[in-house]
Amino acid sequence: MTARDIQLDQNGRLRHFLTTEGLSQQHLYEILDYAESFVGVADRAVKKVPLLRGKTVVNLFFEPSTRTRTTFELAAKRLSADVLNLDVSTSSATKGESLQDTLRTLEAMHCDMFVVRHANSGAAHFIARQVAPHVRVINGGDGRHAHPTQALLDLFTIRRHKPDIASLRVAIVGDVAHSRVARSEIHALNTLGAREVRVVGPRTLIPSEIEAMGVRVFHDVSQGLADVDVIIMLRLQRERMRSALLPSEHEYFHCYGLTQKRLRVARPDAIVMHPGPINRGVEIDSEVADGERSVILQQVSHGIAVRMAIMALIMGSVVPASAAED
Amino acid sequence: MTARDIQLDQNGRLRHFLTTEGLSQQHLYEILDYAESFVGVADRAVKKVPLLRGKTVVNLFFEPSTRTRTTFELAAKRLSADVLNLDVSTSSATKGESLQDTLRTLEAMHCDMFVVRHANSGAAHFIARQVAPHVRVINGGDGRHAHPTQALLDLFTIRRHKPDIASLRVAIVGDVAHSRVARSEIHALNTLGAREVRVVGPRTLIPSEIEAMGVRVFHDVSQGLADVDVIIMLRLQRERMRSALLPSEHEYFHCYGLTQKRLRVARPDAIVMHPGPINRGVEIDSEVADGERSVILQQVSHGIAVRMAIMALIMGSVVPASAAED
Amino acid sequence: MTARDIQLDQNGRLRHFLTTEGLSQQHLYEILDYAESFVGVADRAVKKVPLLRGKTVVNLFFEPSTRTRTTFELAAKRLSADVLNLDVSTSSATKGESLQDTLRTLEAMHCDMFVVRHANSGAAHFIARQVAPHVRVINGGDGRHAHPTQALLDLFTIRRHKPDIASLRVAIVGDVAHSRVARSEIHALNTLGAREVRVVGPRTLIPSEIEAMGVRVFHDVSQGLADVDVIIMLRLQRERMRSALLPSEHEYFHCYGLTQKRLRVARPDAIVMHPGPINRGVEIDSEVADGERSVILQQVSHGIAVRMAIMALIMGSVVPASAAED
Repeated sequence: MTARDIQLDQNGRLRHFLTTEGLSQQHLYEILDYAESFVGVADRAVKKVPLLRGKTVVNLFFEPSTRTRTTFELAAKRLSADVLNLDVSTSSATKGESLQDTLRTLEAMHCDMFVVRHANSGAAHFIARQVAPHVRVINGGDGRHAHPTQALLDLFTIRRHKPDIASLRVAIVGDVAHSRVARSEIHALNTLGAREVRVVGPRTLIPSEIEAMGVRVFHDVSQGLADVDVIIMLRLQRERMRSALLPSEHEYFHCYGLTQKRLRVARPDAIVMHPGPINRGVEIDSEVADGERSVILQQVSHGIAVRMAIMALIMGSVVPASAAED
Repeated sequence: MTARDIQLDQNGRLRHFLTTEGLSQQHLYEILDYAESFVGVADRAVKKVPLLRGKTVVNLFFEPSTRTRTTFELAAKRLSADVLNLDVSTSSATKGESLQDTLRTLEAMHCDMFVVRHANSGAAHFIARQVAPHVRVINGGDGRHAHPTQALLDLFTIRRHKPDIASLRVAIVGDVAHSRVARSEIHALNTLGAREVRVVGPRTLIPSEIEAMGVRVFHDVSQGLADVDVIIMLRLQRERMRSALLPSEHEYFHCYGLTQKRLRVARPDAIVMHPGPINRGVEIDSEVADGERSVILQQVSHGIAVRMAIMALIMGSVVPASAAED
Repeated sequence: MTARDIQLDQNGRLRHFLTTEGLSQQHLYEILDYAESFVGVADRAVKKVPLLRGKTVVNLFFEPSTRTRTTFELAAKRLSADVLNLDVSTSSATKGESLQDTLRTLEAMHCDMFVVRHANSGAAHFIARQVAPHVRVINGGDGRHAHPTQALLDLFTIRRHKPDIASLRVAIVGDVAHSRVARSEIHALNTLGAREVRVVGPRTLIPSEIEAMGVRVFHDVSQGLADVDVIIMLRLQRERMRSALLPSEHEYFHCYGLTQKRLRVARPDAIVMHPGPINRGVEIDSEVADGERSVILQQVSHGIAVRMAIMALIMGSVVPASAAED
């Protein structure tokens, strides 16, 4: 059974949201279009719609991540769902209990959706294969494999600024080797037919086989950014610094950090993105992060809208948010 | 003042829910009957009823237990209550503050219900004696003493499969000495007039005075399971292994673990129960836990319905859930 | 820019609530009067009003305090807000991220209000200066500087017992040097024109420059309490005991602890207050804490009403709670 099969129901509609790999243009555009109707919800006096009222969403976090949990918690609450935060990494609930028993137990409590975060690649797929038919699974990041909601919110932000995706050159810069965000973005951008997807970084942080995913590899940042429309900076995991992969933060910034000067080789209307949290002065200069080309905070805002759309979509609650007055 | 007095108001109605000891058949059936109306709530699109809207339920956990907290949290939220999780074991709120002052403070904040979990036997009773008249207390497990909501959800599950409780032989198997669940079940089953309640386990884990509670003691598991209608396996606290009470997990399973072979001496339609979490291969074989006689996951589902019923009942919100559309 | 400027919008209305210093009588009375309408909410069957429905309140706690967090969480939930508890002291969300980036991110998620608790004086002001125009900030206690919601709930409790504040002598007793509560109370009582504000305590715990705030200093407790209408006992931080500032708990109680005997020098109808949690037998005798002059638990109850009023007021939702049926 391929990843595509697990994500889709027998009618080809999204049932889980695990990866952007194998999703069709239609699936991606369905999410992006639906998310548009949730952007306006944030501007209302009452920022809630009743689409998931009476549903129970479980944040099943095997790897702690306050920021990611917060975005899903807010998205679920603004859909009027009840939210249960289970920090499985520290929970005594699961002592001596297998993962399958934990899942069975939560299902028996009539939980409707699991947002899964796990340090191991494939964990969300594994869980999606195990759950009962009524349960929905969202991948909130698994190992180095995928972080598909981040990819979708990035696509959403790109499309709002550059609607003609087929015309775009996109550069993904930094630690591509360890980035689940990069993998999910490459799949999605290629599916939507982006003109060119580049990955830019030192040899130690670019996997040798990555060209097979349909990207061009650059080790020189000036060449990599030349004439691009979109720059996606990746977060540098500081843990890598301790390994032999990187010399020092200072040297990394010297070679790959995004500065105003480097930005000049990109197209004049290029936008700068970053999944956050930012390491200022390591992968990006503050002048750029806070500058007029930066859309980093828009990404955060859109992240709530896109996650609301995905949650409502896979629960089968497809009503435009604008029509779903609370 | 006896436990019975504390639990009941002057009209003999349930005010707190602390123990099954001393409760009448009528009290037990009132809960079981009322819980029936909450089973259907879980199947609705909107799994909520407004019976406790505007009430504040406090999970007052002096002993951490994610699983038990989760069931009460879900039950309270599906009754539309606001839930406050106070992990008193780690909380700085109570530093240098007496338990009574903590209770007085929460009452002054107009909290309506305390779900108490404590490592010491009698803690929930102690708290119920302290609280203001408007406050309700539920015992979520105290020491080795009582775990009455677990007993009620077990009774509920038994009755759904075997409505004529007076005709039943029930075997409770394992570490009876340290089990608050066993104590609460024995009281409830005897009150409902079960034909025979047995406890089955090694001499080191069966208290010598237990026969006074109205049970038959078996040290041989084949004899103990012979012709029973219901088998309730207890969870083995792995901490016991380190003490002199038990030789090893392997030997325990060899002598008392529930296998398909052992199950054959019970009645052909016997059901198998376990309060969870399961130690597979220690107290129960996976083949049995996942087999057709197992009702373990039904216990989890019924646990939400039974806890909703108890919460609504003691708050005086006795309206059939089916009539309380949200 | 002064503190007053940051708290008020261009029309002179409360926008943040950071300190009682510089607030006018009108501002203080507006809060106190509005809070009256929330006292009744706690007596309703449904203790909720929809004034903050669809708003997101973030408890941004850089210093853990379960008790304070609980009061704000309850107040926000009873206003029907969604509440996000961020324990920033332990959160991985903020690893390597600046405070400003954390604030920008939460704003981009369309959070509406930050309740800030911080060990450093001035932290809430700093944050209020940083936030976007639509965001409101409440100071939940910053270092030794201010704890204005506590001061307001104390004023509210005083006024309910002694409406003519201009006629009152108020004694604040104990560790004034380290008390943010004392500072906030002194400003507010003087603004409302209290007849006399006294601080009473050992020389090591009374700042030498405190008379400039408009208080009379007493080192002898009998003189300090003579003829007062209101006694506000401060909590003794037991950490101070380890320093050279105080000899021992026993000796402190001997010199400054509030006993029935000491209470006799105050006016016969004097009320006794304490922000909690109480150290019984250290700063106050149990006989007094639980006695008929004590209004300590009323302070807790009023704390919810006053915080609801402040939250609703600064969000611009000024509708009497009694008119805002849920």
